[in-house]
Amino acid sequence: MTASEAPAEATGPRAVVLLSGGLDSATALALARSQGLSCYALSVSYGQRHVAELAAAARVAAALGAREHRVMHVDLAGIGGSALTDPNLAVPESATTGIPITYVPARNTLMLALALGWAEVLGAQRLVIGVNVLDSSGYPDCRPEFVRAFQALAGLATKAGVEGMQFEVYAPLIAMSKAQIIRAGLSLGVDYGLTVSCYQADEEGRACGRCDACRLRREGFAAAGVPDPTRYR
Amino acid sequence: MTASEAPAEATGPRAVVLLSGGLDSATALALARSQGLSCYALSVSYGQRHVAELAAAARVAAALGAREHRVMHVDLAGIGGSALTDPNLAVPESATTGIPITYVPARNTLMLALALGWAEVLGAQRLVIGVNVLDSSGYPDCRPEFVRAFQALAGLATKAGVEGMQFEVYAPLIAMSKAQIIRAGLSLGVDYGLTVSCYQADEEGRACGRCDACRLRREGFAAAGVPDPTRYR
Repeated sequence: MTASEAPAEATGPRAVVLLSGGLDSATALALARSQGLSCYALSVSYGQRHVAELAAAARVAAALGAREHRVMHVDLAGIGGSALTDPNLAVPESATTGIPITYVPARNTLMLALALGWAEVLGAQRLVIGVNVLDSSGYPDCRPEFVRAFQALAGLATKAGVEGMQFEVYAPLIAMSKAQIIRAGLSLGVDYGLTVSCYQADEEGRACGRCDACRLRREGFAAAGVPDPTRYR
Repeated sequence: MTASEAPAEATGPRAVVLLSGGLDSATALALARSQGLSCYALSVSYGQRHVAELAAAARVAAALGAREHRVMHVDLAGIGGSALTDPNLAVPESATTGIPITYVPARNTLMLALALGWAEVLGAQRLVIGVNVLDSSGYPDCRPEFVRAFQALAGLATKAGVEGMQFEVYAPLIAMSKAQIIRAGLSLGVDYGLTVSCYQADEEGRACGRCDACRLRREGFAAAGVPDPTRYR
């Protein structure tokens, strides 16, 4: 989808959409837009090894008609503990058991907290996050019980909540397979060639083809029976 | 308390202590230290109007024997919506009704999320926060129900939680009056002259004496019947 094909600007209820630049969050944005939500896209720069995904997020936000796209910076590299934030830890290139080293401590809690703050200022009721429990890496903060717990917290944590706002954490992909996610996105005109999922993409956004994120993405396109537009290096 | 009078370095269970540089969080750190916890102090720079409180936090962390003090940066000024992060909004200097404009959207959710991430990497079970519901400004994220909701979230949000860690959000001041907090801190050797509570302190940390935070602090010293060491400008 090019910018000129973007949906007309929504005037519906506002939503803050967490947008990483990857496949899942692009689809979540498209689904939110298809419901007429006026979407404010939020990308969080948390010390990722590469910034290609932030560039991808900007392209996706424009193509899918987000009203605004903001990048907020948080220095999670100072915490470490993850192959995605600590340059001394290698990204695994073969299957592992358990929760992998690419897990970033408290990442989705932090990103939803930032989304909640912006939502409160915007008067947005919905926080949209593209988490997915089936074809995922087993991260704890991608599970339905996490989403429910954050939603419960949101009402208690905010002035808006005290004043009656019923925040909703909308996770439309949570029970979908990767193939279902891809088919849903394609039906809404998402150009997955704009997205970057790879944990170690190069500066041009080209994927390694070997990490967990690349594997899940490639298997998803194969299972959906559609061409994989990913640029591999 | 000077650094030389600091308690011996704790070797007990680890805790991450949110330390703003103000009176309450200094007392929370002292209480955590008095229980033998090995304390890792975390200050969050979120676009405050002044940095005097971060300098105060560093002094307090050293004086009270924190094992480490880190400052993490988050750009909440980009969100706005608060007199503490938006230079276009004035800090009120007289009493207001309801939740005041100094409320920072989702602040404590965000700070606890950062504390949780660091705690997970450290293997720390406890997150210590100096929130207080009695002599406070009525912020929603200072209430016991908020603290409980975050604690519930913490176990679901993290790899450590999935693997059995029972995170505890320890809010020792939550039901104390400001006078009780001050007396508790003094009994543990806290030097409140090191702390800065004012919402608009100058670069040397001198207080305005007129904002809500100054009012609550001054009334606390008066109620406790002890001299107020605050440096007013």
